[in-house]
Amino acid sequence: MTWLRYFEISMLIMGIIGPLATAPQLIKLYHTHSHHARGLSLSSWIAYSLLALLWFLYGLVHKKVPIWVGNLIGLVMDLLMVIGILIHAGITF
Amino acid sequence: MTWLRYFEISMLIMGIIGPLATAPQLIKLYHTHSHHARGLSLSSWIAYSLLALLWFLYGLVHKKVPIWVGNLIGLVMDLLMVIGILIHAGITF
Repeated sequence: MTWLRYFEISMLIMGIIGPLATAPQLIKLYHTHSHHARGLSLSSWIAYSLLALLWFLYGLVHKKVPIWVGNLIGLVMDLLMVIGILIHAGITF
Repeated sequence: MTWLRYFEISMLIMGIIGPLATAPQLIKLYHTHSHHARGLSLSSWIAYSLLALLWFLYGLVHKKVPIWVGNLIGLVMDLLMVIGILIHAGITF
């Protein structure tokens, strides 16, 4: 296995772990701490969603699997955050 | 300007906008909604910090300016989130 291939796999793992790191935040938002949803920034999570979408498209165009796979998962997680904030806090900054 | 150079600059801009998207979340945590800090996931933000650190090192090793610059800013933003959560909510999941 070449070094480049090794790093490609490392990037894929990190690209997938990154979005999964949002799981505890989603659990707090939807389950355990919904009453604190107003403390979450809707604008931050909308921005993260847009950036994940752009990186996903970038990865597709450049055929970089770690980039589009990681950012597709990230996009889903970020949109779930946006939806959860809208449900539990409504429009907020 | 070649296409590759154009994309390199786009990546740099997105790499910097990404961490800056955390600014509204930091304002909510430190200023306007500190009493909702328990709704923020300490484990998510610690994970984001570790990943930003790894990507920062990855960018340095591979001499990819957009990656290390964006993730250095991201690391600072994420660590400020971790510190803010510890100050306003203490140890939480």
